[in-house]
Order: sequence, then C-alpha cells, then structure tokens
Amino acid sequence: MRDDIDVLVHEVGPRDGLQSIQTIFPTEAKMEWIRREAAAGVPQIQVGSFVPPKNLPQMADSAEVVRQSLEISDLTVAALVPNLRGAENGMAAGAHQIGVVISVSEAHNMSNVKRSVDESLDGFSQIVEYRDAHDDYKDTVLSGGLATAFGCTIDGKVEISAVMRVAEEYLKRGADRLSVADTVGYANPKQVKDLFDELYRTVGTDIAVGAHFHDTRGLGLANAYAAVEAGVRELDSCLGGLGGCPYAPGASGNIVTEDLVFMLEGMGLRTGIDLDGLLEAREIMECHLEDEPTQGAFVSAGRPLGFEPASVAA
Amino acid sequence: MRDDIDVLVHEVGPRDGLQSIQTIFPTEAKMEWIRREAAAGVPQIQVGSFVPPKNLPQMADSAEVVRQSLEISDLTVAALVPNLRGAENGMAAGAHQIGVVISVSEAHNMSNVKRSVDESLDGFSQIVEYRDAHDDYKDTVLSGGLATAFGCTIDGKVEISAVMRVAEEYLKRGADRLSVADTVGYANPKQVKDLFDELYRTVGTDIAVGAHFHDTRGLGLANAYAAVEAGVRELDSCLGGLGGCPYAPGASGNIVTEDLVFMLEGMGLRTGIDLDGLLEAREIMECHLEDEPTQGAFVSAGRPLGFEPASVAA
Repeated sequence: MRDDIDVLVHEVGPRDGLQSIQTIFPTEAKMEWIRREAAAGVPQIQVGSFVPPKNLPQMADSAEVVRQSLEISDLTVAALVPNLRGAENGMAAGAHQIGVVISVSEAHNMSNVKRSVDESLDGFSQIVEYRDAHDDYKDTVLSGGLATAFGCTIDGKVEISAVMRVAEEYLKRGADRLSVADTVGYANPKQVKDLFDELYRTVGTDIAVGAHFHDTRGLGLANAYAAVEAGVRELDSCLGGLGGCPYAPGASGNIVTEDLVFMLEGMGLRTGIDLDGLLEAREIMECHLEDEPTQGAFVSAGRPLGFEPASVAA
Repeated sequence: MRDDIDVLVHEVGPRDGLQSIQTIFPTEAKMEWIRREAAAGVPQIQVGSFVPPKNLPQMADSAEVVRQSLEISDLTVAALVPNLRGAENGMAAGAHQIGVVISVSEAHNMSNVKRSVDESLDGFSQIVEYRDAHDDYKDTVLSGGLATAFGCTIDGKVEISAVMRVAEEYLKRGADRLSVADTVGYANPKQVKDLFDELYRTVGTDIAVGAHFHDTRGLGLANAYAAVEAGVRELDSCLGGLGGCPYAPGASGNIVTEDLVFMLEGMGLRTGIDLDGLLEAREIMECHLEDEPTQGAFVSAGRPLGFEPASVAA
C-alpha cells in the first residue's frame, strides 16, 4: 500500500452499485464518475465485472471501462470475475486487480453459482495457474473474496472455522489478498472484531485483508470501525451507498464512501481522499441516475465546524 | 443497574424526539407509546421536560406523564429540567431521575440559556441543595449532562480538558451520574474512545456514565459501539430516530433505539429488551405522527436468519 495513506478505500460503486440498480450507465457516464472520483484521491476503484453480457447488460462494457480507467494516473483498477473465462477477459483488458468471490456458506455458493465451495476453490486455482502461465499478467493481483462470512440468508449462522478454511485454501492456492464480506448485512461489530482477530491469527498479518460491509441493518460503519480496530486497512464502499437493498426501499446497500471517508479522516487515518471532491463525484453520479435512491449522511450535514481531515486535501 | 442487563438503553423519544417535531402528542398517545415500550423491556424512559409550557407546548403535560409512567412496574422514569424551578416540579411529580444539561462550550451554553458554564453549574448546585433539603426526594437521582462534548456549531472544537472540568464540577457539586452528549453529531469513534478513556481516568469507574449520540453524519452507532468498548454501559436513543435533524430532511437525529438494541443484543450484551415488542411500540408511535419522518434500518430489514439475541425475550 502507498505510504501516504493509512486506510485504502476501495470504491466498488461502478460495479457493485450499478449492478444492483435498473439504470444502465453508458460508458462515458461511468468514466465521468470514475475520473472525478479518482481525481478526488480515491486510490482504487472496482470498475466492472467480466460476466456474460446477457446476464448483466450493465457490465457489458467492462473491458472498455478498464482500458479507459488505466489511463488515470495513480489509480488501481480492479474488476470482478466469476470464473476463468471472466479472468482471462479481465486480464486481457489489463485490470490491475482481479477479484473472485466464493460464498463461505455452501448453500449460498450452490444457489449463486451451482458449485460447491471446493469446486469454486478449484476454479480459483485455474485462474492462478492461468495468471502464472502468462508473463504479461505476472503483476496482476488476485483477490480472494469470502462472501457470507458473517451469516447467510439460507444457512443462517456461518462458523468462523468455515471462514478460516476458505481463507487458508485461497492463500494455499495463490491468492495475493483476501476480502471478507458481510454480503447480506448480518454482522455486528463484536462479530467483526472476533472474526478479523481470528483471521490475523490464522493467516498472519503480512497478507493484505480487505473488508466489505453492507448497511442493511444500520451497522455498516460500526462494523467498518470494528474492522479498522482489528487491523483491517482496506475497506470497500460505494459512493452514495448506491445499490439499495433487496429488503426494503430506502435501506442501504454498501456502506457509503463519503461517510466512511469522513469517519476515517476524522479519526486521524489518512485516506488520501478529498471530501469535497467526493461530493462532486457524487453529483456527477446522481446526474445519470433515474429514480434510484442514494444514501448518505455527510452529504446533507457537511463538515463539522473546525473539522480537520487527516489527509492534506488532494 | 439491574444485574440482568449489561447495557441500559435509555429511551429519550418522548422528550427529545417529541420536542423536535411539529406534531403534538396528546397525553394518552404518549402513554400508549411509553407503556408499550416499557412492556418490551425498556428499563428507563425520559418521559418529559419541565419547562415553561409557552416555550414547549409539547411538554406541557410532563407532570401528568411522569405520574402515569410511575405506575408502570420496573420502569425508571426520567425527566429533563432546565433550572431549579423545573427540578422542583419534576421532583414534585415524582420522577426517579432528573437530568440537567450544561453545554461544555461556553458559546453554546450562553446561546442556549444566557448563562456562563459556571453560572449553570451554580444552578445545578441549587438543585442538589433542594433535593438534599427534602427527605421525600432523597432517592431522586440527579444526572449531570454535558452537551457539545465532542464539538460545537459555534465554537468548533471542544477540548477534552474542558469536558473533564465540567464533569469534575458536576461530581463535586453532587451529581449521581454523568451523561456525555454529542449534541450536534460531530463525534467520530476514535474521539469517543479517547474522551471516555480520559473520563474514566479522571472520575473513576464507580460513577455511572451515559452517552448520547446523534446520527447526523452517519456515525451514531459506530460511536455507540466505541463508547461501549470504552466501558460505557448506559446509552440514550430514540425509537424510530424521531426528532430529525436541523440540517436536512431525512437526516437522523438521535440514534435509533431498535437499531441500537439489535446491535447490542447481537454483540452478546443483554439489554432486557424484546425487539419485536420494540417494533410494536414503534408502530404505535408512528400512528400518532403527522408527516414526520422516522429513521431506522432494522425495522425494514428484520432479524438475520439464526439471530440469537443475548436477552431472553421479555
């Protein structure tokens, strides 16, 4: 990680947010958003997903979005892939980081991708082998995502031991980093602290570990704080909390980037991100939305009087 | 504190919530709400404020609300007072706990009550003397509230040393407990942890300390978690986050009782409160609202599958 930031905020809106809404953003709209947010100092953006276009028409231009995003200086360009085919396309487009997600819950993984967890892990191994077989891709970072790590809408409770098993398998098979996700918004801060404490005991502290929280039950930022307290230094979030929630209109999906950055900067943790620039990016994003709700408190309330962000304004 | 609960959730909606909205609740509507919420297991409710009725017509029936609330078993009945006159009325009505609030920020205190902090502290001393001079009131708990403890809309930054000074003065003058408030929603979790760590170092751990957070910038529950981590075992909150926010429509005022209880119970901390009962109380409250927004995520998202609250259902 760059030495001028303490916590890496990984914007996932152009993938996770856009994937969950009805509005389809043209490529240029995505790029306006991505460029403005990168200009505000956001160091890493998940710009797309390499899935069959018939499944997710929103993501059909991901290769083009990756290519244009690579022209932005100091931006780590990340993409999500469901399988080897997607990884091949993502690497060919030039993404710096390729993310794979496996649900720790067997039932959730089976329901999502019709594979057992071990079959999905074997799929991840194929991606690692493909990367390692191509010199052009030797710097491509492979991120192992653990979905439903804090609970599952089908299986309910997910044991920490199951999370540890998938984490260890990922690393054994060549993952460069891990990303632990509260996919369905079940986590509480104590659970977050306990899980990351156990994860660092299990895999050590040299491996980069990210966290991905949803605000479905209002605890998203409390969980983010608990993760930071446990030592996590990479957090996913979504500008304007775009993406909504399957449960209820108005309920939030991913934690809100600008609220997260406000919290971290107020706590003295440098994100390298300028809050005013982030709000401008939010306006640009909102221009392209059709009747989609956005979330966030900082956008309405603004800076406290005398607020001193940890980062020098970008 | 009762030994069957780990964290005391202090509902302030019938005072703080109702005081901030346009709808005027008739006494019977307040009592329906208070009775149902107490039946859900909420151990303490701030039911009113003893202020001149011309200033706050919403609170004109506070003596009657206190009297009726005293008939509810196992409920600690709290009221807020601005001065000796209010305290006399509150004690005469029979409130178990009388809260006074002084802004740590001189400018904020002057703007609010046209008194310096020291003049307000002298006012608190008068209340203690009055209580101590009346045998009937010897069990009345006097709570010293510290407003703008994390920052002020007039003065900006508020020094921890200023908070400590007011806290020590309160205790020297006879306060039975302290309540530290982020009145304007400026706090972040690190600041919360630092302040309460310093407070416990300054006043010891024998004195009961409560915390009062607003969700103005989305950090209310993160701050509540940080307070609990620091050792705080009494938290103010408001059913449905009633009370809104001076800054923006839709932005939240006090932290939401049901989201707070969900967080604490999920963390293994017993509140003695039944979440379903709390949602019923919320419905009763909402019946009486006229176009006032309510907040909260748990009400829409519901319990996670397999959720095990720490408290046995009330």
